Amino acid sequence: MRISLDGKWKFREVGSLEYLDGTVPGCVQLDLINLGKLPDPFYSVNEVLFYSLEEKDFEYVKEFYVENLDWQVKKLVFEGIDTVADIYLNDFYVGRTDNMFLRYEFDVSTILQEGRNTLKVILYSPIKEAERLKKIYQSKYEYPHRSWIRKAQYSYGWDWGPRILQIGIFRSVYLELNNGLEITDEFVKTEHLSEELAVVKVFAKINSFEKPRSVEIEISDGEYVKKVIPDVYKSKEGYFIEERIEIENPKLWFPNGYGEPHLYTFKIVVKTSNEEATQIVTTGLRTVKIIKEKDEYGESFIFEINGIKVFAKGANWIPADSILPRLTEDDYKALIKMAKDANMNMLRVWGGGIYEYDWFYNECDKNGIMVWQDFMFACAIYPDEFDFFVENFRKEAEYQIKRLRNHPCIMLWCGNNENNWGFRDWWHIGDPEFLGNRIYKKVLPQILSELDPTRPYHISSPYGGEHPNSEKAGDKHTWDIWAGWKDFIYYKHDNARFVSEFGFQAAAHIDTMKKYIPLKDQTIFSKTLRMHEKQEEGLERLIRYMAGSIGLPKDFDSFVYLSQFVQKEAIKLAVEHYRKNKFRTAGALYWQLNDCWPVISWSSIDYLKRRKALYYESKRIFAKFLPVVEYEDGKLKVYVVSDDLMPKQGKLSITIWNFDGQKLYEKDLAVEIPKNSVIEVFSEKVENLNILEGEWLYIPKHVETAVIGDKIDRGLLRSIVFVSLFVDQIEYENYFVFEKPINLELKPSQFEYEIKDDYIVIKPKTPAVCLIIETDKDVEDNFIFARPEKEYKICLNG
Amino acid sequence: MRISLDGKWKFREVGSLEYLDGTVPGCVQLDLINLGKLPDPFYSVNEVLFYSLEEKDFEYVKEFYVENLDWQVKKLVFEGIDTVADIYLNDFYVGRTDNMFLRYEFDVSTILQEGRNTLKVILYSPIKEAERLKKIYQSKYEYPHRSWIRKAQYSYGWDWGPRILQIGIFRSVYLELNNGLEITDEFVKTEHLSEELAVVKVFAKINSFEKPRSVEIEISDGEYVKKVIPDVYKSKEGYFIEERIEIENPKLWFPNGYGEPHLYTFKIVVKTSNEEATQIVTTGLRTVKIIKEKDEYGESFIFEINGIKVFAKGANWIPADSILPRLTEDDYKALIKMAKDANMNMLRVWGGGIYEYDWFYNECDKNGIMVWQDFMFACAIYPDEFDFFVENFRKEAEYQIKRLRNHPCIMLWCGNNENNWGFRDWWHIGDPEFLGNRIYKKVLPQILSELDPTRPYHISSPYGGEHPNSEKAGDKHTWDIWAGWKDFIYYKHDNARFVSEFGFQAAAHIDTMKKYIPLKDQTIFSKTLRMHEKQEEGLERLIRYMAGSIGLPKDFDSFVYLSQFVQKEAIKLAVEHYRKNKFRTAGALYWQLNDCWPVISWSSIDYLKRRKALYYESKRIFAKFLPVVEYEDGKLKVYVVSDDLMPKQGKLSITIWNFDGQKLYEKDLAVEIPKNSVIEVFSEKVENLNILEGEWLYIPKHVETAVIGDKIDRGLLRSIVFVSLFVDQIEYENYFVFEKPINLELKPSQFEYEIKDDYIVIKPKTPAVCLIIETDKDVEDNFIFARPEKEYKICLNG
Repeated sequence: MRISLDGKWKFREVGSLEYLDGTVPGCVQLDLINLGKLPDPFYSVNEVLFYSLEEKDFEYVKEFYVENLDWQVKKLVFEGIDTVADIYLNDFYVGRTDNMFLRYEFDVSTILQEGRNTLKVILYSPIKEAERLKKIYQSKYEYPHRSWIRKAQYSYGWDWGPRILQIGIFRSVYLELNNGLEITDEFVKTEHLSEELAVVKVFAKINSFEKPRSVEIEISDGEYVKKVIPDVYKSKEGYFIEERIEIENPKLWFPNGYGEPHLYTFKIVVKTSNEEATQIVTTGLRTVKIIKEKDEYGESFIFEINGIKVFAKGANWIPADSILPRLTEDDYKALIKMAKDANMNMLRVWGGGIYEYDWFYNECDKNGIMVWQDFMFACAIYPDEFDFFVENFRKEAEYQIKRLRNHPCIMLWCGNNENNWGFRDWWHIGDPEFLGNRIYKKVLPQILSELDPTRPYHISSPYGGEHPNSEKAGDKHTWDIWAGWKDFIYYKHDNARFVSEFGFQAAAHIDTMKKYIPLKDQTIFSKTLRMHEKQEEGLERLIRYMAGSIGLPKDFDSFVYLSQFVQKEAIKLAVEHYRKNKFRTAGALYWQLNDCWPVISWSSIDYLKRRKALYYESKRIFAKFLPVVEYEDGKLKVYVVSDDLMPKQGKLSITIWNFDGQKLYEKDLAVEIPKNSVIEVFSEKVENLNILEGEWLYIPKHVETAVIGDKIDRGLLRSIVFVSLFVDQIEYENYFVFEKPINLELKPSQFEYEIKDDYIVIKPKTPAVCLIIETDKDVEDNFIFARPEKEYKICLNG
Repeated sequence: MRISLDGKWKFREVGSLEYLDGTVPGCVQLDLINLGKLPDPFYSVNEVLFYSLEEKDFEYVKEFYVENLDWQVKKLVFEGIDTVADIYLNDFYVGRTDNMFLRYEFDVSTILQEGRNTLKVILYSPIKEAERLKKIYQSKYEYPHRSWIRKAQYSYGWDWGPRILQIGIFRSVYLELNNGLEITDEFVKTEHLSEELAVVKVFAKINSFEKPRSVEIEISDGEYVKKVIPDVYKSKEGYFIEERIEIENPKLWFPNGYGEPHLYTFKIVVKTSNEEATQIVTTGLRTVKIIKEKDEYGESFIFEINGIKVFAKGANWIPADSILPRLTEDDYKALIKMAKDANMNMLRVWGGGIYEYDWFYNECDKNGIMVWQDFMFACAIYPDEFDFFVENFRKEAEYQIKRLRNHPCIMLWCGNNENNWGFRDWWHIGDPEFLGNRIYKKVLPQILSELDPTRPYHISSPYGGEHPNSEKAGDKHTWDIWAGWKDFIYYKHDNARFVSEFGFQAAAHIDTMKKYIPLKDQTIFSKTLRMHEKQEEGLERLIRYMAGSIGLPKDFDSFVYLSQFVQKEAIKLAVEHYRKNKFRTAGALYWQLNDCWPVISWSSIDYLKRRKALYYESKRIFAKFLPVVEYEDGKLKVYVVSDDLMPKQGKLSITIWNFDGQKLYEKDLAVEIPKNSVIEVFSEKVENLNILEGEWLYIPKHVETAVIGDKIDRGLLRSIVFVSLFVDQIEYENYFVFEKPINLELKPSQFEYEIKDDYIVIKPKTPAVCLIIETDKDVEDNFIFARPEKEYKICLNG
């Protein structure tokens, strides 16, 4: 029996006399906002009003009544406390928490009273606690505050997130009352998998004071049903099952784009003389392996799922709110659906956030979204020279691995984010024994070998090769562009084996920007805007890239729109390059899918789940088929990237227009597309394309030591290429211009449009590099390139 | 007897039938401009019209008459040909030139005719010649075109210069007719120097068919006169003198700011039976040494002149025109005077330009400007694996060293610009045997030990320490700021021993910008403007730094002004830091003094010799005394840097104002300033300065992983500190604000002004961070900071 202690609590700052109304799950920040004591931290510069909370201690109190104490086991369970707290029940000390990523169970058999009980949780300032630990342990290393506390690292402020050190009981609290029967450590392991047969092993521990009377496993996927009565064994730790089960003609779990992400449920039912317990494992049958083979470029890094080489397409995931308890299952459903709709097949749960809620993994399971799962360490050295820290983490790892290992979506465990790169290039400490490395290189491999040997483990992201961020082996974070200020054309020089991070910033959706930035501060370098740009000199980078590729914005609105246009163009160029390079490069996960507050960031979906230009573009660049146009050695070339597992026939249509709306060239051709690879399908000298005008212009171009005038035919600056590939009745489009927009002789696009019901129909009379539909509706497509002769019918409530 | 062949010549493109009027000294480019065949290459994007010339060959022809051939020696002398040419006299082949940095003498005794002679010079395309050499020598290395030809490297286009491959006879041509008597290789070496006595050795070769009848050396400095009759010796190479001369109570040559740059002339007169020859050496008496001593930071790099440790203050020098023959002595006089007036004491003749005209060194001699002299190699690998290249360079080095070694201004020979840094960090070839290193490490030390052992030789700039660009030893080029996009606040972290390059761009003077950029293109990212910004992504950097420190410009004019303001603030911050760090840092030469065309660049003086904000600031930051204000650990501190060789007493006045014009604080104090060092003269907690308002604000600030709101008292954002130091009746001023301007609560400054005769008198009512006088006159001071209670009287024709 479970008695929820969620709901209404009381809280106060320690030392204050007055109690206020609080809520669990929740946190101090959320309670104070709900009470009107503090404003929305995301509006304007309100964030700063929340800083002082981090130095304070708080007390949460709940009175509750228990009618019947007639249970052999009485446990108080906290699904999650953020972070350092002492817990008292009826003024008896129950225990301490110091890890946000742990579930805590306390035995309260002797303390719990019939009738009224008072539960008190004293939450301590994480800053002061870190100071206390620093003093006690006296390390010679300067760990930042956040390294001492097992707490979501992004809450200390990140380059896309505010500094809001959440303090509170942020997940459910309940009493667990039973007579000792519990099924734990459930694990469904796929041992063999073919089209004909799957062999799985079902493992579970059964806590019970007596030998279970019956144990049953029921396997179901809606259609298929199989019941198994497993043998029950006894070890010194108790009872357990470990049952080999065969499933004939199994339906496999496939990543998005490769088939259905089929799921099975394994329902384990245990009965004793006086109790019955049920544990349901929902999982999928699939294999995962990373192909690491020496080749001419170094060593491959290719995800092989069910024997198929899969190019990973997707993004990095961060916590979807800086105030976690606000998140609901619907938020996860919506965001994962958006990832799927954008033709992504992988998300990386980044190590500076949280081990995500079950909702996240459930949705990924259902939508075929593969997950790269980091352990929660990011961009810092960690005090694993001290055993207390390692033991704390060990509990965390064991709990999280057991919680997550049945999710078929998770494809990889990864030790941390960027710390091994940091050892080498930022902190210049080589490859140390401690500072986190003890955990990444010793502790984690040992725990995983025991609790989940079914998935690959990767020491860090990035890692592999002679240098942690090598492009010869392992994964790479490509940050010389943007972070390193390099032009995004240099993505074309990146031959990483797997790009687990690369990215480009843009403002949030214009409505989101305007909602959170007061009207008077809607200028490009206002202090308020600068507080909604969390990267050092991020706004400067935005302006730098915008200026260099399309020009300076006229006003706040054009700043927002141009930033999104440039972001989408940069990532489009990168993804086209990476996919064209498959499988030398075997994955492209851009930084980042989502936001945790309204901010200028690398995301494609903003905090309010509004879509930025990049989101719309992601659908195109991650589609199963991607036609890519290049201008190489005086030739216009079209390549087709296919992620299809079958060879296909397609129809490619190429049209070239000038910006006045004249069609200069047209060609239709049938194309044979080999499976899961890249092919050049068109190559023609530009002289034969009716583009050249014979008038020469000079555009500024960098050559060796200077910028000189580069001679170019004016026609190349006045024309645009559209390609349209039909495969299986689906159209895959792309466009190409010969220079960056600032050098083109663009003209305002002319078009007609009408709005019918929920649709807008746009009929261009001249081609457009980018048409923006400005509406408060949730349009299906936007920031589109468009050519004459085609009608663009776009749903306005998409 | 010398017969000049300068003046009117004819020229044509090889293959063309028509001759055009040309001029020598001159070049194809200049002739075509003068003829109206090509427009001003500096206007708009006209530069591109000059590119095609570089692939062409040209013929220059001069007819001249010689009346009397009755001389034993008949030589045809070219002071400089740019570059590859065959020379014919009366259709006889005379010889070939292939080095712009050489003087060529040809014996024409047998070819020269009495009466009419025809001299023909065929100039070859330097691009085609480089291609030809590439084919012949078949190196495994990819040398750029410019590396094959001994020609000014900047003419191929540099990140501040257009690509104009000058082709022509760019220096004087003449016939030298005599009977064999010539004085060459003259060299006045200081062997001992003290206040009481200078010992010099005067060396010269005397070419003569007979033993000279008399030789005399006359030493004079206007006052002092001494005549010496030296011994004449004979070796197998001919006659020579090598005379030890004592000068009692000598007047030394001092760098600007340390005393007079006193000069002596040594007039050598030689007579034979039928001829008399005179050679005048103007030189100064001084010693130079670089103090390289191990210390706690590594190894020092301090110029010691006449036993005095001198902090080098100045800039890098580039050719003052992309079309060299336009330059006149007056140009040099004006520019060197400007360097001196800006309190500079050193210029570096950068290795991508030319060994400068005599005018340059003469003016440096006269003005006490020390010269860091590079040999002409820059930012490339050079084909010294081939002997032809080394032998060509050997002639160049011998000629230039002999030409320049008597100039007291030259303090250092330096092998090249940045090539050894390049070996390491750009081309990743370690420390090669060839690629230029043969010349820098073997050939040059050997030549110099023979021809000029009086000065230090430095292998490259930068060089020294474990890394060529180390901050522990040798000189350093600090380019992580600007080139590497880093904020200029990071200058404060640079502990280089000698900063021979660092810099920050700005637009040219607004009148210069408007003269060369057509009105319609006077927008911030116009193609034309982008062609007047030669660094890759230079404009993007300008915008990035401007935006981050003061905000985006409204229009073209504000773009120009703000760029200059930010440039001056950045270099001010750097120089204050470097000078405060003396002698850990012992020199600060900013990149760059001057321009070779109208361009957005790092210069402080533009092509038309108009002064940018940085020029005015240079006077202040390079002055003998520099008060520096810092805000450190909650305290306002004032330091005084002194380059004076005597301890001094000064009066320091500190006033603090808010931007409304209220005086918040005032303090006068007497200060004791020790000689040639730095002292803290004031330190006060900010609480005691009447600045704080008790109202807290938050400004965006980068901390660890994010930008957060940094709490600051509003008073700090609304006040400005002025310091005024009086020493020897001279006022040295500075100002300080607590944040970058974009964070300040600035207000438009209020002031009155009147114009009287050639002066403007400004009376501020509220303080100003920067007052700009907009006038077409040549104002004495501009971009000034100004405080109430002071009148600013500024000459408008200064």
